[in-house]
Amino acid sequence: MSIRYLTARLAQQIDEELMSATGAFSLDQLMELAGLACAQTLAKVYDKERYPRVLVCCGPGNQGGDGLVAARHLGMFGYEPTIWMPKPGSKEIYKRLHTQCTNMKIPTIPPSSTTDSLSLALSSTDVILDAIFGFSFQPPIRPPFDSALAIISKSGVPIVSVDIPSGWDVEGGKIHEGIGLEPDVLVSLTAPKEGVRAFKGRHFLGGRFVTKAMEEKFKLNLPQYNGSDQIVELAQVPAEKL
Amino acid sequence: MSIRYLTARLAQQIDEELMSATGAFSLDQLMELAGLACAQTLAKVYDKERYPRVLVCCGPGNQGGDGLVAARHLGMFGYEPTIWMPKPGSKEIYKRLHTQCTNMKIPTIPPSSTTDSLSLALSSTDVILDAIFGFSFQPPIRPPFDSALAIISKSGVPIVSVDIPSGWDVEGGKIHEGIGLEPDVLVSLTAPKEGVRAFKGRHFLGGRFVTKAMEEKFKLNLPQYNGSDQIVELAQVPAEKL
Repeated sequence: MSIRYLTARLAQQIDEELMSATGAFSLDQLMELAGLACAQTLAKVYDKERYPRVLVCCGPGNQGGDGLVAARHLGMFGYEPTIWMPKPGSKEIYKRLHTQCTNMKIPTIPPSSTTDSLSLALSSTDVILDAIFGFSFQPPIRPPFDSALAIISKSGVPIVSVDIPSGWDVEGGKIHEGIGLEPDVLVSLTAPKEGVRAFKGRHFLGGRFVTKAMEEKFKLNLPQYNGSDQIVELAQVPAEKL
Repeated sequence: MSIRYLTARLAQQIDEELMSATGAFSLDQLMELAGLACAQTLAKVYDKERYPRVLVCCGPGNQGGDGLVAARHLGMFGYEPTIWMPKPGSKEIYKRLHTQCTNMKIPTIPPSSTTDSLSLALSSTDVILDAIFGFSFQPPIRPPFDSALAIISKSGVPIVSVDIPSGWDVEGGKIHEGIGLEPDVLVSLTAPKEGVRAFKGRHFLGGRFVTKAMEEKFKLNLPQYNGSDQIVELAQVPAEKL
């Protein structure tokens, strides 16, 4: 049985169930484990000696929160992360997560700056962590993300995307307005989304917090993680419809 | 420079600073990373094939919360944890963490049961995670923990202690009332406590969330963690007073 690819709606349902009174998880917990998985994936593929400078691109939603957690862990691992977050989320948790990064002296490109500052940052970036849009993304791509995606794509810097490459349809996988990213590495959280069935790069899974009962209920067919790892690489096998 | 051993007061101060408006961490985050470090330490020393059955002994405070997080991760890693938590903490977070374990079908010995049930559980336990007393422990050791520590000690089952072996003075290290535990493995969180200077077993450090600024402010002289590891083993070097 192959792993299940989730619709946006099912991904949402699993998230809600995890954080319901029954699931009992807090957003803080899930985001911490998700962000740690993103950081560990990047570290597994891009050695910090050769790729020390990571540009962590954060969207305004929970995906951006995962990015902030990942930025902090990357800083702990010895990388030199920089945060680009042009539309900081208003939730209190993002503010806290961002303060934690600031306390680690992780610089943030001023939100008010133009995409010129993004271009400038990219010229001294070794690898990008794309935490812009997640599984709740709905087109159209609004400014400044429309021009930002084009700039990131053109930079040629390797990209690690979280959950769904930014600019892709969460279920259809097609690239919107021709400006979606083409990541080298993808880290899916909880389970991969429908839209990444055709993804050809290295694909990891993170979010090791789904109970066996939930896995069975939603027929997720998750792969085995090794030992105490928080991520597992998915084999390059053709995805079958369940 | 050797690592700094913390007084109870300094450990408390660091915890408070991490969770202050300035530090911006939530208890959920810190406990998640601490508990994960405890589970990874146990998994590093005690292979799940030979030591599958883990009795996670939880006290009523934050240390017990770390234990609950560790129990969940151990379950994820493929161990068969059982929880012994005779005095469940009243904080809402412990209830949530316990629900997460229950959702994973991790059994809990009924709190109302006598220490006979602890003895019975120990007879089918391969390794103990001691998350009973932490750095805020103050003697005397109250029932049922007094008799429980004696029973655990006599069982001969290997012990992994969190932060301070239960029954030890946090600063003096001496064993209270002759019933403190003698763990084989210790996982110190953030930085080791004064009381474990003379600890002879394998000693790990977890809690990879202390900023460089904080490390310098408190002169912690923490060791380097490897790669994206959440734990690091401390070398067996004689501890020097700073």
